[in-house]
Amino acid sequence: MTEKGIDVLATRIDPEKGGRLTESFPESSYHKAARCFTIRKDTSVKGKGTILVVSAGTSDIPVAEEACTTSVFFGNATETLYDVGIAGIHRLLRNLDLLKKARVVIVAAGMEGALPSIVAGIVAAPVIAVPTSIGYGASFGGVSALLAMLNSCSTVATFNIDNGFGAAYFATLINRL
Amino acid sequence: MTEKGIDVLATRIDPEKGGRLTESFPESSYHKAARCFTIRKDTSVKGKGTILVVSAGTSDIPVAEEACTTSVFFGNATETLYDVGIAGIHRLLRNLDLLKKARVVIVAAGMEGALPSIVAGIVAAPVIAVPTSIGYGASFGGVSALLAMLNSCSTVATFNIDNGFGAAYFATLINRL
Amino acid sequence: MTEKGIDVLATRIDPEKGGRLTESFPESSYHKAARCFTIRKDTSVKGKGTILVVSAGTSDIPVAEEACTTSVFFGNATETLYDVGIAGIHRLLRNLDLLKKARVVIVAAGMEGALPSIVAGIVAAPVIAVPTSIGYGASFGGVSALLAMLNSCSTVATFNIDNGFGAAYFATLINRL
Amino acid sequence: MTEKGIDVLATRIDPEKGGRLTESFPESSYHKAARCFTIRKDTSVKGKGTILVVSAGTSDIPVAEEACTTSVFFGNATETLYDVGIAGIHRLLRNLDLLKKARVVIVAAGMEGALPSIVAGIVAAPVIAVPTSIGYGASFGGVSALLAMLNSCSTVATFNIDNGFGAAYFATLINRL
Amino acid sequence: MTEKGIDVLATRIDPEKGGRLTESFPESSYHKAARCFTIRKDTSVKGKGTILVVSAGTSDIPVAEEACTTSVFFGNATETLYDVGIAGIHRLLRNLDLLKKARVVIVAAGMEGALPSIVAGIVAAPVIAVPTSIGYGASFGGVSALLAMLNSCSTVATFNIDNGFGAAYFATLINRL
Amino acid sequence: MTEKGIDVLATRIDPEKGGRLTESFPESSYHKAARCFTIRKDTSVKGKGTILVVSAGTSDIPVAEEACTTSVFFGNATETLYDVGIAGIHRLLRNLDLLKKARVVIVAAGMEGALPSIVAGIVAAPVIAVPTSIGYGASFGGVSALLAMLNSCSTVATFNIDNGFGAAYFATLINRL
Amino acid sequence: MTEKGIDVLATRIDPEKGGRLTESFPESSYHKAARCFTIRKDTSVKGKGTILVVSAGTSDIPVAEEACTTSVFFGNATETLYDVGIAGIHRLLRNLDLLKKARVVIVAAGMEGALPSIVAGIVAAPVIAVPTSIGYGASFGGVSALLAMLNSCSTVATFNIDNGFGAAYFATLINRL
Amino acid sequence: MTEKGIDVLATRIDPEKGGRLTESFPESSYHKAARCFTIRKDTSVKGKGTILVVSAGTSDIPVAEEACTTSVFFGNATETLYDVGIAGIHRLLRNLDLLKKARVVIVAAGMEGALPSIVAGIVAAPVIAVPTSIGYGASFGGVSALLAMLNSCSTVATFNIDNGFGAAYFATLINRL
Repeated sequence: MTEKGIDVLATRIDPEKGGRLTESFPESSYHKAARCFTIRKDTSVKGKGTILVVSAGTSDIPVAEEACTTSVFFGNATETLYDVGIAGIHRLLRNLDLLKKARVVIVAAGMEGALPSIVAGIVAAPVIAVPTSIGYGASFGGVSALLAMLNSCSTVATFNIDNGFGAAYFATLINRL
Repeated sequence: MTEKGIDVLATRIDPEKGGRLTESFPESSYHKAARCFTIRKDTSVKGKGTILVVSAGTSDIPVAEEACTTSVFFGNATETLYDVGIAGIHRLLRNLDLLKKARVVIVAAGMEGALPSIVAGIVAAPVIAVPTSIGYGASFGGVSALLAMLNSCSTVATFNIDNGFGAAYFATLINRL
Repeated sequence: MTEKGIDVLATRIDPEKGGRLTESFPESSYHKAARCFTIRKDTSVKGKGTILVVSAGTSDIPVAEEACTTSVFFGNATETLYDVGIAGIHRLLRNLDLLKKARVVIVAAGMEGALPSIVAGIVAAPVIAVPTSIGYGASFGGVSALLAMLNSCSTVATFNIDNGFGAAYFATLINRL
Repeated sequence: MTEKGIDVLATRIDPEKGGRLTESFPESSYHKAARCFTIRKDTSVKGKGTILVVSAGTSDIPVAEEACTTSVFFGNATETLYDVGIAGIHRLLRNLDLLKKARVVIVAAGMEGALPSIVAGIVAAPVIAVPTSIGYGASFGGVSALLAMLNSCSTVATFNIDNGFGAAYFATLINRL
Repeated sequence: MTEKGIDVLATRIDPEKGGRLTESFPESSYHKAARCFTIRKDTSVKGKGTILVVSAGTSDIPVAEEACTTSVFFGNATETLYDVGIAGIHRLLRNLDLLKKARVVIVAAGMEGALPSIVAGIVAAPVIAVPTSIGYGASFGGVSALLAMLNSCSTVATFNIDNGFGAAYFATLINRL
Repeated sequence: MTEKGIDVLATRIDPEKGGRLTESFPESSYHKAARCFTIRKDTSVKGKGTILVVSAGTSDIPVAEEACTTSVFFGNATETLYDVGIAGIHRLLRNLDLLKKARVVIVAAGMEGALPSIVAGIVAAPVIAVPTSIGYGASFGGVSALLAMLNSCSTVATFNIDNGFGAAYFATLINRL
Repeated sequence: MTEKGIDVLATRIDPEKGGRLTESFPESSYHKAARCFTIRKDTSVKGKGTILVVSAGTSDIPVAEEACTTSVFFGNATETLYDVGIAGIHRLLRNLDLLKKARVVIVAAGMEGALPSIVAGIVAAPVIAVPTSIGYGASFGGVSALLAMLNSCSTVATFNIDNGFGAAYFATLINRL
Repeated sequence: MTEKGIDVLATRIDPEKGGRLTESFPESSYHKAARCFTIRKDTSVKGKGTILVVSAGTSDIPVAEEACTTSVFFGNATETLYDVGIAGIHRLLRNLDLLKKARVVIVAAGMEGALPSIVAGIVAAPVIAVPTSIGYGASFGGVSALLAMLNSCSTVATFNIDNGFGAAYFATLINRL
């Protein structure tokens, strides 16, 4: 692909493999927190507005970072707002400006997965929800968060558990409209 | 039981049956919204503080009312705060005083079941969560809300789906301490 | 609401209730196939492009119609393409023009729920998937279709089972960008 | 946190990590059975009564110990009663005094998870139930015990599987009232 | 079958059908609580000891009665002990003599389904557990009770939900040994 | 326990641990196929008849052997009949004599778990069914076999997945009657 | 369709609707046991051998009859063998000739769903398994039978619960080869 | 078996074991992609037509190769068509000739498992569907794909997750007719 000059994004790459890849391809990057590998020559901005990636807890950051890296890769202005989960709702409310200026918002949350519902009650932009597999016991590997998002009393679009890539690619399609 | 002078609380009584019961027992009441029937001669207040019953949506009110009727029946000062679901978080935040002065808070919520987590992030009192069977599709008759409460990133105690009685009886035990 | 001049959309209204409502409100409409009731005075077009609503089978049309009625209600140019399920893929392929000119596509499908994946492989627009409760046995009331959409090898955004309203409201948010 | 003089409680710390932490922080403790690490300078008693932590089997003790360590950490007089599961109900009945004098009771049980129901039938204090992931086959990692607690014919408040911390923090809120 | 002189046992017969059947067959009986219809000419006792049928709550009695009627039909001395659920363990303990003299014990219980475990911890006889569909919400139509029995920390043999017949037939096989 | 002269049976002991235990206790045995460790001084026969342990496939033998070792440990004459699964029903039918002379039959089966039903249709003795976790994909770790046994159109008593011990202990209770 | 001379098969038609349809279309038939309606002018035999439809119990006959009616409709010589479930394996073994001469065998079974496995161990022809929704409690509307068939230790092809039509149409495709 | 001159097929053999086996048996082969080991002396073609094995994605190839190796082993002319999943439906449509000339088609697919439905809408031959465990999150180890196949709006016969062997053996039975 590199020879053809096509940009490359590979997700779910562990650090060891990422290290070997960046050694082989000098112009590549390994994004440790996102576990993504990219070769990106075309750095033009193609999206019209900003994509904001929000995470509920610090444990949800890897999925949020996968979304963030994907969003940047596809040429979107991208911002992040992490660790604003609902156990301390003031942390979210302190960032209303950032939330309201985004053209598309992606929210990654595990456990009870309630953050996307609250964000969608605040912003007018489309909100994309990504359940994460963070939790234990009755979280069933992210199913609890997934169900919460599907049953949101706000309007949110849901992706598969830990699918930061899909959410960001979908946000890209919207942001290019 | 009435002959022995014992007070009576029966839950899940439909209106028709409730009507017949109130005709048979002159000192009894039928609580339509709560679907409860009570005969209550001992109206002394036995709880030390106020129990606040919160509902997320208007559809959750029957379960909230079952909790409320039970709480009153067991001699607690009881207040209600209904329809403050997370799709419009400002409705909840407008009632911080009411929330903070309660000794015990019961929160009934269906669909994504996230309201108890947010309330527990705001108040210092113990929060008791009751999932309701409100919802459709992937709410699975209240399972989605139940899982959300069990996986709360705040600390909430969870009861069975639609179990307003149990939540209020447990709140009573706490309020009498 | 009518007195305040606010437009009204109510979903999941059965024909009998719909009949009574249209008698009471002279300017209202009951949409039988969609099971929706609307009072709509503001008929201006607010969306920038066309929203296309696709259904896999004829049994999925009620959910598709709920999406369609919602889309029209919120001021979007709306088109429909029904009964193009994957058992006869040629029916879909015969309509590539219609598919490709839409700004947002909503796809309702029950049973194996595969149509959104195929549509998303054909169009560049964002595809919103709505599982329907159509099926029997191991369809588990729409769970089979829901899982198919969440696991799509294309990129689709998923809503709750039978949630035509949510999908169309989300499509509206996108179409207004 | 230590520099700020704030006490620290970390749960789910394995022995190796616990060993390294206690070497780094001279005033800290590692609680092996509970898998908890604590730095606790404020040892004042803040709860008004005793919290009793009960375990059904010996395999449930790690979760019970997490609850116990948490209870002590938050300044509660704390007692334990272990290995009194329902296969030998006399072991429980032999300890009625201990059970009845507690202000709050936490019960950890795996497998069929029935002990909290029985304890709640004996004591007047609030009973907090913690399902454990102990069991095999159809215990489904604690789901069987969790369901038993949610369906208790007594009144018990339920927490997530293995969530000894949450149960004890909730008990603390009650014990401070 | 009657013409051939074979005795007949039919379960799950509703009262209306039962009434019609008893009118048609003069020597037959309809057992209302058990919802069973029997024609029984051979009333000899074939079992060697007594089969004791225990129910946890009053709502479990129909299933217990199905077991009881089946046990009598197959020629066993049969006794019953109803409404001795675990929320009031003293009710069970008051009947140790009855429990200990049975050759086989059948225990029907819904909700958390814990009674068979406790009985099996008390008696030396084989204990057969029948989960009932009594409960609501997370009882999932008897699944909670079924799982509790399969995960019993005592040794109990489990039958399908509401299968009073199967339990009693199995008890009969044992009692004839 | 050994010092007190009590016999010992420990299940689910891996070979390495079993080896160390047999070195420490000279009169002990490690049963490799059953993964059981025993110290058994009292070798008197206490059961009245023979317990027959049947396995469907060769992969089910570890569970069958756990049942067999337990049966022998508790003083029962014990026989085995392995690898007679339903894909070749003639293998079972060839052993009718062995089947019919047993006083109690234990059947261990994984995958579709149908063998207990067939055996119970052939013998008059009580049949105890043990689902095993053998299988892959939709066997869900033994759940498929467990459900088959609970839904048997014959009469079989079911135990938890892989619970060879429980089945044999229950068979012992019967065999001593 | 009738006007075009196309034959018609409609499944899941209740008797009342079936009655009205046969009145409207003189050359049509309503198959009560199968709940199917057919208009069939082309009665030529198109399949090369015989399709044998087997049912485990009498309750499974409606699904078996749907398969049978479908098989006949598509021009196959069709035979049936009903009520040969595994609780009395001799009933099946008595019909080996019938089983062995079929070119394709369809087996409908509910509850533990084991009959297809046994049939596939006896015949050399392809065996198609149809789980039925017959059962109660842990049969979960046919899921138990479905899982048994998917986990068959013989080789059987599985269809959706109660899908007699699909099984027979698939058998037709094979029989025409 | 080799001494008796019987051909051998063993599935799910890892490469290391496969290597040791091929060293021990000089006439044997290890099929790495299929993870199968074979000794095959009888190489006569016994099937009447071609079996075509199709895979949706490259990750599904191991299961497809297990089917392919099995098909060849049993004497069928066998062809493959890999990586023609529904996200790019044109890849499938480009191969209509190959699809239409097969006598039996096996389709392996993971994730949303929709490819068999589409193939069955195109070909007249019997289509056998094999769900694979490929996917993450809500794919639940292949359950999502399995459900899609069982609920196919086309007619496909379904096998257990990853059961390439069973599908190919069943295809062989058909191909020999």
